[in-house]
Amino acid sequence: MAPNIDVIAFDADDTLWHTESMYSNVEAKIIPILAPYQSQAIIEQVMHSNEIHNLEFYGYGIKSFILSLVESAVEISQSRIPSCDILRIIELGKEMLTAKIQLLEQTQPTLDKLSSSYQLMLITKGDLNEQEPKIKRSGLLGYFKYIDVLTDKTPSSYSSLLSRYGINPAQFLMVGNSLRSDIAPVLSLGGWAVYIPYSSSWSHENASIPESSKERYYEIKHLGELPDLLNHLVNQ
Amino acid sequence: MAPNIDVIAFDADDTLWHTESMYSNVEAKIIPILAPYQSQAIIEQVMHSNEIHNLEFYGYGIKSFILSLVESAVEISQSRIPSCDILRIIELGKEMLTAKIQLLEQTQPTLDKLSSSYQLMLITKGDLNEQEPKIKRSGLLGYFKYIDVLTDKTPSSYSSLLSRYGINPAQFLMVGNSLRSDIAPVLSLGGWAVYIPYSSSWSHENASIPESSKERYYEIKHLGELPDLLNHLVNQ
Repeated sequence: MAPNIDVIAFDADDTLWHTESMYSNVEAKIIPILAPYQSQAIIEQVMHSNEIHNLEFYGYGIKSFILSLVESAVEISQSRIPSCDILRIIELGKEMLTAKIQLLEQTQPTLDKLSSSYQLMLITKGDLNEQEPKIKRSGLLGYFKYIDVLTDKTPSSYSSLLSRYGINPAQFLMVGNSLRSDIAPVLSLGGWAVYIPYSSSWSHENASIPESSKERYYEIKHLGELPDLLNHLVNQ
Repeated sequence: MAPNIDVIAFDADDTLWHTESMYSNVEAKIIPILAPYQSQAIIEQVMHSNEIHNLEFYGYGIKSFILSLVESAVEISQSRIPSCDILRIIELGKEMLTAKIQLLEQTQPTLDKLSSSYQLMLITKGDLNEQEPKIKRSGLLGYFKYIDVLTDKTPSSYSSLLSRYGINPAQFLMVGNSLRSDIAPVLSLGGWAVYIPYSSSWSHENASIPESSKERYYEIKHLGELPDLLNHLVNQ
């Protein structure tokens, strides 16, 4: 079945620009601050488990991450960490919030090629207050007809988004680095999906692809391969 | 000029449900924790000035408020605050994020009356991750045809919202407790606005109404007065 794709949607974090490396860089700066109190293995384990546990309260994003890190720092040090070190964690958060956006190497040339033939869309999840300024600072605003920030990427959140804009899922293709957030929900609605693994994808984001959706699912190594894949698909 | 209003939009925080009292209750719990280090006047001044200053980094919302409080606590105590007290601030934040929604007394009967004659809309600002669960927990979801969370309420953000849904500003009325966020931007686009002061409106939110917009601007004491005002307006 040759698809008739109208709209190509992109995840942003770790699909168009680097994000996860910024989080792991901050964790790497915090480990030495907490090293007097615990082993590196325990520090990492507490940080990650609080981060996942707190998604329920905070959702995704930098402020959530920093609040979790403060909590982890107190827990790991058994309340012995001096409050000037807590302030250091808060400052690292502000640095993250204002950091320069690092586009992936293939982002701009790929969007350039595709924007003449397709309607492009940006669908991120997380904190609206954080994602909106990032999209502006990225310099990519002009490429996208539609931009949306969701609290979570589920079949129902994609479904309301597509119906809001009157987009048929069969003519919709989503590109992203998370099987769980970008790929599986779109396939479940009858859409098309292209998975581009990021070097260090978060294990929380894994999911498997059902056999029945495999003809609408593709995996490529980097964004630069997307235009050729699309040419191949529509000329099948 | 008798208006022909189709869509009535409501601010949520301190218009449909109580919010500011939750923030001031938390501040009241933090003042005794910081009392050993500074006078109440200085504590309040530092807390408020950090909160305003940090809007630039964090935007609005509970997570932003808590991050600012942690910073203020370290600053006020000159880094002497023990980290178990920092943890207490973090816990107060989680309590705020999961607190029961306290509707204003007139909210439900007013929405009941208006929903049969108008399309209702909810427009909040702040943190999508915080506002979306609050809207769900409020039990008011069913009243609203449109729901939107904006990072900030400016003439341009209202204008894109209205054009996205094809709403003519002259047929749009906004109801809220902030002259700056709910009233002035909507009047500037040619829309109608009803101001309902909340008992302790935040001074950051003040603004004045230009003479040229005064015929589209009304002030009432509480939400329960809105249906009568609308009847009066359309029968002018």
